[in-house]
Amino acid sequence: MRRVLVLNGPNLNLLGRRDPEMYGSSTLSDIETTLSALGAERGVQIGFAQSNHEGELVDRLQEASGAYDGVIFNPGAFTHYSYALRDAVSAVDVPVVEVHLSNIAAREEFRRKSVIVAECAGQISGFGPRSYALGLDALMGILEEE
Amino acid sequence: MRRVLVLNGPNLNLLGRRDPEMYGSSTLSDIETTLSALGAERGVQIGFAQSNHEGELVDRLQEASGAYDGVIFNPGAFTHYSYALRDAVSAVDVPVVEVHLSNIAAREEFRRKSVIVAECAGQISGFGPRSYALGLDALMGILEEE
Amino acid sequence: MRRVLVLNGPNLNLLGRRDPEMYGSSTLSDIETTLSALGAERGVQIGFAQSNHEGELVDRLQEASGAYDGVIFNPGAFTHYSYALRDAVSAVDVPVVEVHLSNIAAREEFRRKSVIVAECAGQISGFGPRSYALGLDALMGILEEE
Amino acid sequence: MRRVLVLNGPNLNLLGRRDPEMYGSSTLSDIETTLSALGAERGVQIGFAQSNHEGELVDRLQEASGAYDGVIFNPGAFTHYSYALRDAVSAVDVPVVEVHLSNIAAREEFRRKSVIVAECAGQISGFGPRSYALGLDALMGILEEE
Amino acid sequence: MRRVLVLNGPNLNLLGRRDPEMYGSSTLSDIETTLSALGAERGVQIGFAQSNHEGELVDRLQEASGAYDGVIFNPGAFTHYSYALRDAVSAVDVPVVEVHLSNIAAREEFRRKSVIVAECAGQISGFGPRSYALGLDALMGILEEE
Amino acid sequence: MRRVLVLNGPNLNLLGRRDPEMYGSSTLSDIETTLSALGAERGVQIGFAQSNHEGELVDRLQEASGAYDGVIFNPGAFTHYSYALRDAVSAVDVPVVEVHLSNIAAREEFRRKSVIVAECAGQISGFGPRSYALGLDALMGILEEE
Amino acid sequence: MRRVLVLNGPNLNLLGRRDPEMYGSSTLSDIETTLSALGAERGVQIGFAQSNHEGELVDRLQEASGAYDGVIFNPGAFTHYSYALRDAVSAVDVPVVEVHLSNIAAREEFRRKSVIVAECAGQISGFGPRSYALGLDALMGILEEE
Amino acid sequence: MRRVLVLNGPNLNLLGRRDPEMYGSSTLSDIETTLSALGAERGVQIGFAQSNHEGELVDRLQEASGAYDGVIFNPGAFTHYSYALRDAVSAVDVPVVEVHLSNIAAREEFRRKSVIVAECAGQISGFGPRSYALGLDALMGILEEE
Amino acid sequence: MRRVLVLNGPNLNLLGRRDPEMYGSSTLSDIETTLSALGAERGVQIGFAQSNHEGELVDRLQEASGAYDGVIFNPGAFTHYSYALRDAVSAVDVPVVEVHLSNIAAREEFRRKSVIVAECAGQISGFGPRSYALGLDALMGILEEE
Amino acid sequence: MRRVLVLNGPNLNLLGRRDPEMYGSSTLSDIETTLSALGAERGVQIGFAQSNHEGELVDRLQEASGAYDGVIFNPGAFTHYSYALRDAVSAVDVPVVEVHLSNIAAREEFRRKSVIVAECAGQISGFGPRSYALGLDALMGILEEE
Amino acid sequence: MRRVLVLNGPNLNLLGRRDPEMYGSSTLSDIETTLSALGAERGVQIGFAQSNHEGELVDRLQEASGAYDGVIFNPGAFTHYSYALRDAVSAVDVPVVEVHLSNIAAREEFRRKSVIVAECAGQISGFGPRSYALGLDALMGILEEE
Amino acid sequence: MRRVLVLNGPNLNLLGRRDPEMYGSSTLSDIETTLSALGAERGVQIGFAQSNHEGELVDRLQEASGAYDGVIFNPGAFTHYSYALRDAVSAVDVPVVEVHLSNIAAREEFRRKSVIVAECAGQISGFGPRSYALGLDALMGILEEE
Repeated sequence: MRRVLVLNGPNLNLLGRRDPEMYGSSTLSDIETTLSALGAERGVQIGFAQSNHEGELVDRLQEASGAYDGVIFNPGAFTHYSYALRDAVSAVDVPVVEVHLSNIAAREEFRRKSVIVAECAGQISGFGPRSYALGLDALMGILEEE
Repeated sequence: MRRVLVLNGPNLNLLGRRDPEMYGSSTLSDIETTLSALGAERGVQIGFAQSNHEGELVDRLQEASGAYDGVIFNPGAFTHYSYALRDAVSAVDVPVVEVHLSNIAAREEFRRKSVIVAECAGQISGFGPRSYALGLDALMGILEEE
Repeated sequence: MRRVLVLNGPNLNLLGRRDPEMYGSSTLSDIETTLSALGAERGVQIGFAQSNHEGELVDRLQEASGAYDGVIFNPGAFTHYSYALRDAVSAVDVPVVEVHLSNIAAREEFRRKSVIVAECAGQISGFGPRSYALGLDALMGILEEE
Repeated sequence: MRRVLVLNGPNLNLLGRRDPEMYGSSTLSDIETTLSALGAERGVQIGFAQSNHEGELVDRLQEASGAYDGVIFNPGAFTHYSYALRDAVSAVDVPVVEVHLSNIAAREEFRRKSVIVAECAGQISGFGPRSYALGLDALMGILEEE
Repeated sequence: MRRVLVLNGPNLNLLGRRDPEMYGSSTLSDIETTLSALGAERGVQIGFAQSNHEGELVDRLQEASGAYDGVIFNPGAFTHYSYALRDAVSAVDVPVVEVHLSNIAAREEFRRKSVIVAECAGQISGFGPRSYALGLDALMGILEEE
Repeated sequence: MRRVLVLNGPNLNLLGRRDPEMYGSSTLSDIETTLSALGAERGVQIGFAQSNHEGELVDRLQEASGAYDGVIFNPGAFTHYSYALRDAVSAVDVPVVEVHLSNIAAREEFRRKSVIVAECAGQISGFGPRSYALGLDALMGILEEE
Repeated sequence: MRRVLVLNGPNLNLLGRRDPEMYGSSTLSDIETTLSALGAERGVQIGFAQSNHEGELVDRLQEASGAYDGVIFNPGAFTHYSYALRDAVSAVDVPVVEVHLSNIAAREEFRRKSVIVAECAGQISGFGPRSYALGLDALMGILEEE
Repeated sequence: MRRVLVLNGPNLNLLGRRDPEMYGSSTLSDIETTLSALGAERGVQIGFAQSNHEGELVDRLQEASGAYDGVIFNPGAFTHYSYALRDAVSAVDVPVVEVHLSNIAAREEFRRKSVIVAECAGQISGFGPRSYALGLDALMGILEEE
Repeated sequence: MRRVLVLNGPNLNLLGRRDPEMYGSSTLSDIETTLSALGAERGVQIGFAQSNHEGELVDRLQEASGAYDGVIFNPGAFTHYSYALRDAVSAVDVPVVEVHLSNIAAREEFRRKSVIVAECAGQISGFGPRSYALGLDALMGILEEE
Repeated sequence: MRRVLVLNGPNLNLLGRRDPEMYGSSTLSDIETTLSALGAERGVQIGFAQSNHEGELVDRLQEASGAYDGVIFNPGAFTHYSYALRDAVSAVDVPVVEVHLSNIAAREEFRRKSVIVAECAGQISGFGPRSYALGLDALMGILEEE
Repeated sequence: MRRVLVLNGPNLNLLGRRDPEMYGSSTLSDIETTLSALGAERGVQIGFAQSNHEGELVDRLQEASGAYDGVIFNPGAFTHYSYALRDAVSAVDVPVVEVHLSNIAAREEFRRKSVIVAECAGQISGFGPRSYALGLDALMGILEEE
Repeated sequence: MRRVLVLNGPNLNLLGRRDPEMYGSSTLSDIETTLSALGAERGVQIGFAQSNHEGELVDRLQEASGAYDGVIFNPGAFTHYSYALRDAVSAVDVPVVEVHLSNIAAREEFRRKSVIVAECAGQISGFGPRSYALGLDALMGILEEE
């Protein structure tokens, strides 16, 4: 059975409470429930982690190497400056898919650039909670091809 | 029955022949066949158009307003400079999802920026032909929510 | 009798339907009717052309050399990147006046720069459909001085 | 009877003497005479002011609020750096039209950008003294619509 | 017998009429006649195409793959922004030589950069109509080496 | 008894009338009344000056050297480009505190940079009319330490 | 009784020891003692936190939502790059005032820009330990107005 | 007898008092006395003017046209942003020499660029009060050549 | 006996496993063993620390002040954006030498700049694991000179 | 009989030995032999010079004025920064053609710009040793036209 | 008796022949004769050197330390990029005055910046051959003050 | 016996005399003596060369190919702009180590970038004369590994 890690960065624990016009009313827990169900359907076991700490996220990515077959990663604001996370994604030996709830290209200037995505397999942004589900499908596709 | 337009920009008619290491060996026709099947499965009728002419793509987007419920759009190299297409996407009254075969953020500097995506619902890039299928799912999700 | 070409670029065929808060509710046809009447009043015969195709607009400008005494040109989004249109304006041997419905200097960063205007006689922007009428007056003034 | 203020910035008192190839041989007084006549024709009373002092121009704009129905403003070189004038234009409660004798987009790099125009109704540039008359027509159009 | 396509971009149909100080008095037809003669001399059959339409040029480049042994390409103003043409040059499986009549490095800032040349075999600029003849020799040299 | 000058730049005489959503409904006179009362409470005599003229503000700053123990300075739009005021602040031999009603870092790009503040003791921005009172306290603190 | 959190970022635990010419000789503990006294005087209960860990600061800000009525925040060097803290400030539902001991605008280039302040109520910088006391007053003013 | 205007910009009235390490201990009056004597020696009558007001300096330059044979101009901080003064220098029909006491190229970044000097005959900077005397000699040389 | 801290930043715990072509096959543990032996030889006691957490590295640097005579620091990806580490290096009262395994100047653009090194004694980059040994010698040299 | 100087800049003496994948296996001596033969064929006497010294190349260009009818110049790395060579090319009274072995537009960023070419007749790049022969033909064409 | 070195950079040996509209018709020898006479008048012995070789100019500057009391230096095109000459000027223990024949601020963009002048006493530009005589006077003034 | 070349660029012959606070009081001769001794100790024969001439340094690097096993290179100010030296380093077939006496990253903006280092094995900067000794050790390490 395949295992996938869904990893979320800073302030994503506030989903549903923070700026609902931008991010919607689903909580992170709602998203995790939906993904678990979806995973069950497709025979994938899904692990979840969220942290506001960059170092914690680096640790989680490093540990993913042996423990998971792929990672769905929403780096939150770290998307825009964390070269440490970029290096961690580059070091991990399973595919990583970057996802975003909002269409980051339509927001403030600083949000339009990801310093991490060049080391990922690809990016999905702008579809709200569904970005995660699409990320899971994208990851499954990559894994099936290997 | 929902109708979706899959619109492809310049040089995408060469898929399978052009730079297969970057773009894979599927032809555009292969992709269209797969998408039609997928559409049939999900009860969506899919139309296809490709053009190397920016003005033709503007025309197609304008005509989509009445004729389709959504658009999956790979603008090819126009992604990086066609403000005319940006305006056309902005003017069309159905959701548009931007898709790319390759992870454009990992390529030449000029490919890392889309001047169109800010007017789209979202973007999916880096998953090869599967980017279109993911785009279809993303679009279906948006349409279901309306 | 003087002849003037009113040339419109991409997406201007959607006027009245597209983003009415920005562009007003007049259609391109309304504007053409008003201009024809105004032309009749002033003894000017006015021709009209619109295209979403950059090459078509280049062709129209080239043909204007023998056929018209001046051009009123709203290049739409091509304003911001079409050096081909700049060269065509430079090559045409009658005066060209650039007009815009909206005040492009008060909009997105990329709209604030025209790559074409340096080869025109001048520019009028921000007065809605009236920008065309003012352009006609500006052009008449130039022609009277010759 | 409508009242319009024609406000001119630094060095425009030298018109006709300064760089006639760029600015023509009409003096500011010639332009004012022409505009007064035009105003009389259209039932508009026109006031005139010119100053080389930025603060004086700010004062004139502030006073225009109660005293005039609109302003035709050629800020001269202040166009390119006076954020104080931008704020004054923004604060004045009547429409302001920015005009320029020359086509500023075809001159030195620093002249291509107006820091004021984003707070104006629109801009007219490149038609010599006629830019003012066009500005008056543009302003009348705006006032009629209110 | 080798076949070479000489492909010209926007406004080059005006050669001889447009800005003769910059581009000389030869017409495009003069250049084509000279090149045909030169081709005959060297046993090369030369085809010609010109278009003001970017998409048309993309189409011509794509068709060149099977039909020609090499391309001499003057992209005109598209040189400076058409990534669609860059991709088409990259996709075509015969060598392409970029030529310019004028020394583009000695002109306006925007003309100093070619977004296409990196995908060409090389570039020749500044020698007027002779740039095409030199381009033919350069191309013959490349073909002989293969 | 300490003496403090409260100096205001261009368009601040319009406070209460101009853009009340941004600047609030207090007039400059209201602010001066409040500050005078506050000064009386703390044994400070407060002088006031406002000008739309950069040179006038330079003059006032120069004269402050002998006449005041410190200056609270809101340079208005001059904040962003007046190096003459920067030099005047640098030349004055009493501390100067820069204050702003609005949070200038959250507004248009050009408002985010002060060319004057590097020569001031410090800056307070974003607290509406209270920014002045805080500026007075900040100044008192500096003077007490001397 | 109102509750205010005083939150300090990296290296501020070294205050009094690190670079006293820039930051003064007061320790963080001295500042906290002064602020507690000041709070007592004004009927505000003040909590304190300091961390060298960005994630810890994000956590503290998130927890402030229910537990405090406002935050005085000196982000230290994170001021200049932590978009994660910017998002946390944006997410917290009480006002945040950014304070700095030194006049950051008069220091190295990289210190002149705050990526956080646009989401704060305002900023106070340059008054040494007194910046915190002024921040408290600023915060009280905001809370009284609510 | 030749007449020369020595024109000084903002804050130069403070010479001798302001930042003596940078500008020396001579007052503006000392410099004027020295220049008057030097002028007498060389048969030149020298007029002096100083203002902190940009508009005043524009006025002085405009009036210089008939009244003086040349101008020695130290624009102070206006050097770096006053395009109004640049235009006034351009409009004046006698030669203008820009002088600076300090070596502006060795100071803060913003002082390294003069927006005025391109319209002057030349520039002399870095020689303290002697810059003015050198400016007078330079001007005499230009006038002798005419 | 001198004590030296060898401090390593994010992802350096993966040495030997991550991108061996770039970083070689030695593990961090191999490097530490070699350095301990080298230290023993030279009479230096060497402590080691590694963390993926920026805050942890700030803590370690702060604690080094009393506990070590110098620091050899490889900040990993933090090299390029952690101003918090820059401040910590600046605050520590013993010399810090920045070392890198790879020649960072020959890699991606973002890796070519260190925001930390200006506060270090010097930098050694490009010599693989030997960079640490060279760093130790460099540090010994500095300590001997004190 | 016409005389042409073939002038080569730094490191071109290493041709054939240095980076043969980029520059080919022909030595500079091979190229000179080929060119001499070609010159003999066309009745041109060809002189050769190479230097790693910028000043030497300036000297050679200056001396070319009387001694040669034209120059073929490969400035090597000086292409990208030697304004002294630019001035020397500008001063020489015979035409200069800039040639490059490689397609410099397809290499590192710094190689894409020539600071010299704007003063040359034109540029030929990307055709290996044949670039010189094409340069000779280009030069002959220019000389024939005079 | 004081000794002054007049040092000239690349292409200045061509003075009088090169671009006389820009640089005048005096030769370098004419200028040297005038300066020698001027020096004799003022009791200064003047040495002359010119080189097209950057290294030669560095050598001359280094040797000036013991042999001359000051240097008048026209670095020619090296003005704009030779940091080696900047360092040499910085190392020489006598004052250096940078002179230019033309007003470099009114020419091409690249000529507007001197990388050397920050290490000189001052700069004189735009007065043709007289710039050297003014430079001598400037230098004498500096030497008299020591 | 291994042979190493120590190559020094412009103004390094002045070491000990020039700016001793930055560069220390050791002369280049002192450094060479120390390095010779060190070389003797380690069985390496060391050659020395210094030049203020860029071309001379290019020559020395080219000759090093057969004559030395490695090069320690301090390019002085050429570090920041000499692409000719970059190419020479790239062409030489032995490893080159770039060394600097000062920590160039902590100095003027223009000194922070080396255009040469990307072609070197690595860089050592900031350790005064010891930088050379460390460079020798670094080089020995590289040679031992081969």
